[in-house]
Amino acid sequence: MTSPSLTPDAIPDAGARTFASDNRSGIHPEVLAAIAAVNDGHQTAYGDDVVTARLREVFKRHFGERTESFPVFNGTGANVVGLQAMMDRWGAVVCADSAHIDTDEGGAPEKVAGMKLIAAPSPDGKLTPELIDRYATGFGEPQRAQPQVVSITQCTELGTVYTADEISVVAAAAHERGMLLHMDGARIANAAAALDVPMRAITTDAGVDVLSFGGTKNGLMLGEAVLALDPDAVRGVLYLRKSSMQLASKMRFVSAQLLALLEGDLWLRNARHANTMARALAAAVRDLPGVEIMRPVEANSVFAVLPKDVTERLRKRFPFYVWDAHTGEVRWVTSFDTTEGDVAAFAAALAEELAA
Amino acid sequence: MTSPSLTPDAIPDAGARTFASDNRSGIHPEVLAAIAAVNDGHQTAYGDDVVTARLREVFKRHFGERTESFPVFNGTGANVVGLQAMMDRWGAVVCADSAHIDTDEGGAPEKVAGMKLIAAPSPDGKLTPELIDRYATGFGEPQRAQPQVVSITQCTELGTVYTADEISVVAAAAHERGMLLHMDGARIANAAAALDVPMRAITTDAGVDVLSFGGTKNGLMLGEAVLALDPDAVRGVLYLRKSSMQLASKMRFVSAQLLALLEGDLWLRNARHANTMARALAAAVRDLPGVEIMRPVEANSVFAVLPKDVTERLRKRFPFYVWDAHTGEVRWVTSFDTTEGDVAAFAAALAEELAA
Amino acid sequence: MTSPSLTPDAIPDAGARTFASDNRSGIHPEVLAAIAAVNDGHQTAYGDDVVTARLREVFKRHFGERTESFPVFNGTGANVVGLQAMMDRWGAVVCADSAHIDTDEGGAPEKVAGMKLIAAPSPDGKLTPELIDRYATGFGEPQRAQPQVVSITQCTELGTVYTADEISVVAAAAHERGMLLHMDGARIANAAAALDVPMRAITTDAGVDVLSFGGTKNGLMLGEAVLALDPDAVRGVLYLRKSSMQLASKMRFVSAQLLALLEGDLWLRNARHANTMARALAAAVRDLPGVEIMRPVEANSVFAVLPKDVTERLRKRFPFYVWDAHTGEVRWVTSFDTTEGDVAAFAAALAEELAA
Amino acid sequence: MTSPSLTPDAIPDAGARTFASDNRSGIHPEVLAAIAAVNDGHQTAYGDDVVTARLREVFKRHFGERTESFPVFNGTGANVVGLQAMMDRWGAVVCADSAHIDTDEGGAPEKVAGMKLIAAPSPDGKLTPELIDRYATGFGEPQRAQPQVVSITQCTELGTVYTADEISVVAAAAHERGMLLHMDGARIANAAAALDVPMRAITTDAGVDVLSFGGTKNGLMLGEAVLALDPDAVRGVLYLRKSSMQLASKMRFVSAQLLALLEGDLWLRNARHANTMARALAAAVRDLPGVEIMRPVEANSVFAVLPKDVTERLRKRFPFYVWDAHTGEVRWVTSFDTTEGDVAAFAAALAEELAA
Repeated sequence: MTSPSLTPDAIPDAGARTFASDNRSGIHPEVLAAIAAVNDGHQTAYGDDVVTARLREVFKRHFGERTESFPVFNGTGANVVGLQAMMDRWGAVVCADSAHIDTDEGGAPEKVAGMKLIAAPSPDGKLTPELIDRYATGFGEPQRAQPQVVSITQCTELGTVYTADEISVVAAAAHERGMLLHMDGARIANAAAALDVPMRAITTDAGVDVLSFGGTKNGLMLGEAVLALDPDAVRGVLYLRKSSMQLASKMRFVSAQLLALLEGDLWLRNARHANTMARALAAAVRDLPGVEIMRPVEANSVFAVLPKDVTERLRKRFPFYVWDAHTGEVRWVTSFDTTEGDVAAFAAALAEELAA
Repeated sequence: MTSPSLTPDAIPDAGARTFASDNRSGIHPEVLAAIAAVNDGHQTAYGDDVVTARLREVFKRHFGERTESFPVFNGTGANVVGLQAMMDRWGAVVCADSAHIDTDEGGAPEKVAGMKLIAAPSPDGKLTPELIDRYATGFGEPQRAQPQVVSITQCTELGTVYTADEISVVAAAAHERGMLLHMDGARIANAAAALDVPMRAITTDAGVDVLSFGGTKNGLMLGEAVLALDPDAVRGVLYLRKSSMQLASKMRFVSAQLLALLEGDLWLRNARHANTMARALAAAVRDLPGVEIMRPVEANSVFAVLPKDVTERLRKRFPFYVWDAHTGEVRWVTSFDTTEGDVAAFAAALAEELAA
Repeated sequence: MTSPSLTPDAIPDAGARTFASDNRSGIHPEVLAAIAAVNDGHQTAYGDDVVTARLREVFKRHFGERTESFPVFNGTGANVVGLQAMMDRWGAVVCADSAHIDTDEGGAPEKVAGMKLIAAPSPDGKLTPELIDRYATGFGEPQRAQPQVVSITQCTELGTVYTADEISVVAAAAHERGMLLHMDGARIANAAAALDVPMRAITTDAGVDVLSFGGTKNGLMLGEAVLALDPDAVRGVLYLRKSSMQLASKMRFVSAQLLALLEGDLWLRNARHANTMARALAAAVRDLPGVEIMRPVEANSVFAVLPKDVTERLRKRFPFYVWDAHTGEVRWVTSFDTTEGDVAAFAAALAEELAA
Repeated sequence: MTSPSLTPDAIPDAGARTFASDNRSGIHPEVLAAIAAVNDGHQTAYGDDVVTARLREVFKRHFGERTESFPVFNGTGANVVGLQAMMDRWGAVVCADSAHIDTDEGGAPEKVAGMKLIAAPSPDGKLTPELIDRYATGFGEPQRAQPQVVSITQCTELGTVYTADEISVVAAAAHERGMLLHMDGARIANAAAALDVPMRAITTDAGVDVLSFGGTKNGLMLGEAVLALDPDAVRGVLYLRKSSMQLASKMRFVSAQLLALLEGDLWLRNARHANTMARALAAAVRDLPGVEIMRPVEANSVFAVLPKDVTERLRKRFPFYVWDAHTGEVRWVTSFDTTEGDVAAFAAALAEELAA
């Protein structure tokens, strides 16, 4: 009787490109160059620097004039700082049961901020008005942590992508109840690329109040940002960022990375490429006997069920995650630097192991 | 599009006995007398008094010689103090999705202690080894709050009662994984009465490590206790009780109430009576057309589905909770002071409203 | 090299009246009678009962029509619930370095609510505008927990009493900075009795925003209340009380005790008596050679320096606290039930030990 | 009646080198090169990479074979993760009243971890056995947060440096009481350079149990590390780092920076240079009439009292912090990239303003 292990085998994989996660990739060369480019002289620490000032304007251009932006270190930090700023001490967050905040942040939302998460079962990783109706309850009752925020993930952890319309109806369901809408946008660029719309169309314009903007998985060394798309939806972000230990002293170097992504179209090039590689991977393995692609390949991940022995052997060659140890479902993620050669090599290895 | 309201209509109900909850009852006369009996002179505060010392021995008699006991104010306090003492800062608790700690404690476990709750869907309110296997995952992975405690409720919030054997297999499933077993025993007396066993048989002897012993719902003014049935399962209870604001200065008066319950058989008389009244209530309404009893009546509550208009009218006469606004299921709870007359009057009123 | 111990020797003191603390006393007979008087039938739980409704009106009578009241279990609970309701997650509280919240609540303010306490050194236990000016700093700087509340204790932990004027200038200093004024009123009745003014004069009328009203030390079994004297100064008290584990289900029995204190003049009779006994004790020992009374005896405690061997022997006969192990200062506290005989016996014992 | 502002004037200072703080500097070229050098292919995320593995060995070389190392984002993160790992939920930390954890981390220790800080007044920023004796009290008493850790800062926030002997006696005082010794080593390299000893001599060998190793202020873009010099002194660092939001996914790039510092002697070259520049600055201004150097210049900061109007005008030209608005004391900090020209220009400007 063992518990399912989600850890890929520890493989000395220096130099290789794998399909374990988009956070295994390195730094895009343009991002690295941007770090070097601002490494000159002294700058006021903690965000009062000229690079961060420029970034603020670029975020406004992408997400609307009212947008206020707060760079942070990582995605968990962005989520927990943003959610706190939207909520009272007695608040609860309704999210999907696959949400990263609920499953993969080590309990940080509860530990750092004392917030209650209400995880709604959702087979495709998406929330709907019906789920919100079912799980956001107890308004006005002290015995209940008060549902104050709905949090959705774009792309979802299951590789699916909310359309702008789907987000709008979720936003309406939240706002009707006096709740706010948060989006964990760790892969927001992949979603926009998949839908071929500006990021604004699936965030600000669809009723999202606060966005965790993701950079690390799209080519940065590290760097995310809390975006208050509606500044009235947040309180105290500057204080919460510091007291939640997400305030970089030499912030210009985080901001410069985000700028490199957003000032031109690098965000889109990277995301499009990763998405294309996921579709290529799915195409390359879909017809192999013994492989069943389980979910629509809408962005940069592929979920498949394999025979368990095949999974076991293949992970010794290429690390990746077993998503569900009970069903044998595995997850493959592509990245901005995934090559066609990587896809071909992986598909060939899979074919070999299936044949073994 | 409304959210379900669990609040009974606010009714000026002084003097009446209702079926809303067993915490609407008053103080059993023997308990009140016990408070008065220790109201003499000064006693060392914070638990170093002679009454609490005597209580310690009585708890050992009921639950085993190793039992260490820590009186607290209320059930939420008992649960949160006990769970903290069993867990690291990075721990998670697996519980049923109907567990009081998850649904009715205002988010106190998260807020006071930062602990993550993992709520497993369970139609009858019970955990099983299968559910533990499914929901206690991610051992050793920093991205996951570490499952360290399984928490079960006896009686469950759905009025069902775990047998000693059911508890033993849950305990084994927990212990096999290096987890500990916590029991929210807000209605532990009703469970023992229902099974006709000593409380020890369904706690210490069945592998429970820490018990929240419930007194308030069984005739006290207020008073519960954290019981470390296995003292090796806890750390720092004395400090956690104070820093969690559950340390009574004049503790002798809390301890005296618990003593009144446990020194003789008052705990059992009260619980048996409440259980008997629940069966009487179920019997009195079961055959009324339009009433469907939904769950086994094992202890002191009855769950039924009624026509929604009947519920609405009946709640104006007798307050009780709508358990599930979607299905129309309601909950009726009996208490140590419920009379046969109360049952008859309620059944008659229900019959009237059904006929209206 | 030992650390100072503040624990009185554990003495089997059943029946005796000591000078260790006013929380060693029992329940005033009128309070006990009040508990019994409301023990009839069922009442809505959690405060929607008729007793608590009546208490609300009585609190308004004492503290002003705008007063909103929230009964809780204990003083730490009142302080931490009230302070949270006044503060953001990023707030800090300026208090005296002898404040109970800083020294004797087991770290509950930090642990339960994450709040930062800034303890200003104050030899007489009182805050002043100068201390506030010195310790409330860093407004607007994210690196600093934001000073949002000034908390004073009345009577102070050093037995001194703020005059109405002293409170008014502290209130003004707080309000000028956009801060709020909290009062830990664990012994508010003793202060009002000492000054011979209504409680309102040293709270609402002096600019206090939120009061922790103390009952336990003035004759209750247990029971305190958060009083929002200015309801605009608080947010979410109902939710915070529950999520901080301070919500009694059978609240009528807590409220009945507070009513017994406040509906007539029991609060004043009890406090006056305790104060009188403190003065009597000071008078009885002041001239004994080897005793030095260290502080003005303004309410119900006496601080004295004794020879350390005398302290040691005397504590074997009557438990009391060593306040400062470095200076040898001890604290004696009188209570509503202290008798002239108790004072005489204690003074005689002290004289004996001094002569030994 | 204003509160002191510690914020330097916001000056468009791109390109300039100032004396506001060593975190205003950029990235040392060797560190930047090290980031680029590991930007090849994929690496296992979250620290299971080859760079972090190499760093682990290098930390052992510097601090002893038992050292376990955990890279984090920033200094607040290092302190709060390390301290949590050393303490129970009911613990307290004794630190100097100038300690960064108490004054400049936005209340993160309290907010993220609920820990109580006990700030001992210390004019030179150092703790001593006497201060520990005075402030670490209440052992075994539930009313007191339990003193479990002594935290010292090296160099102190006041620019002073503990000798190895001074640390040893503090360590002994802590250990005698069953407490552990934590060092905030944000400027540990400057201290070792000042004393001309290996870092090990003032940490591991002097009895420090856990060190927050600082990199950012010594030439990194960002990167610090929790070092468990005595692994028995900590529990759960891996879990605490994640749940405290300090786990970098692409950790190799944080580790590479720390490696660049530590694999050769860059840590020492940078620190020595900064220290030299501080002495040069002190020498250049010491004899100017109206300037009083307030503290020994032992590492890389200079504290001076200036006429307030001079401070005001000078800060418009060079940003720096007013350390104490009451006394007019200011702080100047040098960095690895401070030049002799910077010092001369600043001293000249100061002379001008003094003469104005």
